[in-house]
Amino acid sequence: MAALTAALCDIESVSGDESRLADAVEAALSGREHLEVLRDGDAVVARTRLGRAERVVLAGHIDTVPLAATPNLPTWVTGDGQEAELHGRGTVDMKGGVAVQLALAASLTAPNRDVTYVFYDGEEVESERNGLRRISGTHPDWLAGDFAVLLEPTAGAVEGGCNGTIRVEVETSGVAAHSARAWMGHNAIHEASTLLGRLTAYEPLQVEVDGLVYRESLNAVRIAGGVAGNVIPDRCVVTVNYRFAPNKSPADAEAHLRELFTGYPVTVTDAAGGARPGLDQPLALAFVAMVGGEPLPKYGWTDVARFSEIGVPAVNYGPGDPLLAHSDDERVPLTQVRECLERLRGWLSGA
Amino acid sequence: MAALTAALCDIESVSGDESRLADAVEAALSGREHLEVLRDGDAVVARTRLGRAERVVLAGHIDTVPLAATPNLPTWVTGDGQEAELHGRGTVDMKGGVAVQLALAASLTAPNRDVTYVFYDGEEVESERNGLRRISGTHPDWLAGDFAVLLEPTAGAVEGGCNGTIRVEVETSGVAAHSARAWMGHNAIHEASTLLGRLTAYEPLQVEVDGLVYRESLNAVRIAGGVAGNVIPDRCVVTVNYRFAPNKSPADAEAHLRELFTGYPVTVTDAAGGARPGLDQPLALAFVAMVGGEPLPKYGWTDVARFSEIGVPAVNYGPGDPLLAHSDDERVPLTQVRECLERLRGWLSGA
Repeated sequence: MAALTAALCDIESVSGDESRLADAVEAALSGREHLEVLRDGDAVVARTRLGRAERVVLAGHIDTVPLAATPNLPTWVTGDGQEAELHGRGTVDMKGGVAVQLALAASLTAPNRDVTYVFYDGEEVESERNGLRRISGTHPDWLAGDFAVLLEPTAGAVEGGCNGTIRVEVETSGVAAHSARAWMGHNAIHEASTLLGRLTAYEPLQVEVDGLVYRESLNAVRIAGGVAGNVIPDRCVVTVNYRFAPNKSPADAEAHLRELFTGYPVTVTDAAGGARPGLDQPLALAFVAMVGGEPLPKYGWTDVARFSEIGVPAVNYGPGDPLLAHSDDERVPLTQVRECLERLRGWLSGA
Repeated sequence: MAALTAALCDIESVSGDESRLADAVEAALSGREHLEVLRDGDAVVARTRLGRAERVVLAGHIDTVPLAATPNLPTWVTGDGQEAELHGRGTVDMKGGVAVQLALAASLTAPNRDVTYVFYDGEEVESERNGLRRISGTHPDWLAGDFAVLLEPTAGAVEGGCNGTIRVEVETSGVAAHSARAWMGHNAIHEASTLLGRLTAYEPLQVEVDGLVYRESLNAVRIAGGVAGNVIPDRCVVTVNYRFAPNKSPADAEAHLRELFTGYPVTVTDAAGGARPGLDQPLALAFVAMVGGEPLPKYGWTDVARFSEIGVPAVNYGPGDPLLAHSDDERVPLTQVRECLERLRGWLSGA
């Protein structure tokens, strides 16, 4: 597994440049009798068609964020045995998980459930370029299943569902004037003080959904106002990001923000619903029991929500510390990659 | 005067492009026996050397801000008689005043006080390009005098002294984090709420100096924070402009701001002291009596402060509504230009 993960990482695949890796994945799985291999752009889908009662989807993106300033590829290993870690771009997010998918796809010739392996492009960039989103439009049947596991890094825990996210621009307005005669105008930046006061006083909720507690957050992520050093500004825009629990729809979240910012124009710039953890489903429960440990809520928005949208309960489960994702010293303990492989193999091989 | 003002305006002289107009002014005054004509770059200085007991400086800048989008030159006249107005770039700021200087320089061959006429470049742009500033370094004697009148637009009132101005950047800091896990960070924009609160609660002073009441002001003129839509910002910068009464030095103003913003780093980006009105000086009092009406304080910073710095009391007095300066429909009542000329001529011609 160490060699396979390293090989996948060493084929650079920064978003937009995934073709070489997609070709390699396709070549590795083509011609195997137990798999049907499909391709859409730089996404590769391989699936068994054994007529099992249930179908499981294992999905992961093959792109990465750009390399570190001091390029962190090719990969290198530090430590031995249980302590061995593979370092470099993509080791955590998420070629450790992709290696597990690939190893299972190649070796599990007769799984106890039908399995669809999805390797997709464009996850680390804007939603429009997301391969999973593209396939859900062009070939929704490729993603069909009773349960999906996204092999995003969770350090080997099961993280269920995810919060939704909405971004809005809230605007204050004033009257421009020369700053030497400020009393002729009305300062839109000073007006923003009221807005920021509401944000600062806001107490984010913690919401229990399907047995997991989702922690919300509400933050200004950008503020901009002012045109010149001697002009009283007539406009100030605060960009606010609200991460809301998966019991709310984007429309609920928008209504909540409009109420909070009563008196100021609110413009939604983007929104994506969250995903309920779905841990009340028998297949999900069985999965959690197999992995062991307490399932956790996922705070960040992930592609789990896309499966949720098309009616496939999904969880995150994969090797690597999510806090190291995108960091310059991204590194995965190789034991986590092996453990993830063994657990999934066990779950898909039993009676 | 209408024709002279129009002719001066119709020679375009946006800051940086004053040579043609400086040449024209120099040519108009050269070869006159009663004047010594001097030149420094695009500034022209003409002065009488009659050995009078007092010397008065009449000064004005010959540059303008850029033309309006729909070019507001050449000039045009609307209305008749007392209602006639000259329209176009520079009519208010300040070629009406420059026309008065030029007419006086050419016609007052034996004024009752020695007179220095200063026509200078680069007033509408950054201080480093200001011609008056340049001359005060290269030829301070050219600006020497007992009293100066800056013919900036004041709608025919005498405006004494000016407020000082200081700009500072006040910074809040925080800890960056992914906005899906906001509680891992500390939001610098939310922190700015405290700063803006102090600004909003601030009650600007009104300060009497030499008999005129100066109204101060304190304003955020710019705010910027945030790096991306999913990152808790770790830095927010508020640019603050404080206009302070001329009884304070820039150092006093800086100390006041540092006290107000205790707890946050403050960086001074630029500062310029104001000018006391100097209306306790006999020459100034005589001037005010001649013009009539109540003298007013000047709020905006003007080059009066440069004269103040070199020990020459100075006031603003000129034709044109200062609120129309820089506006697209800049226009001066021609009666104000004539009245300004006649009053100054009377003051400099009497016994």
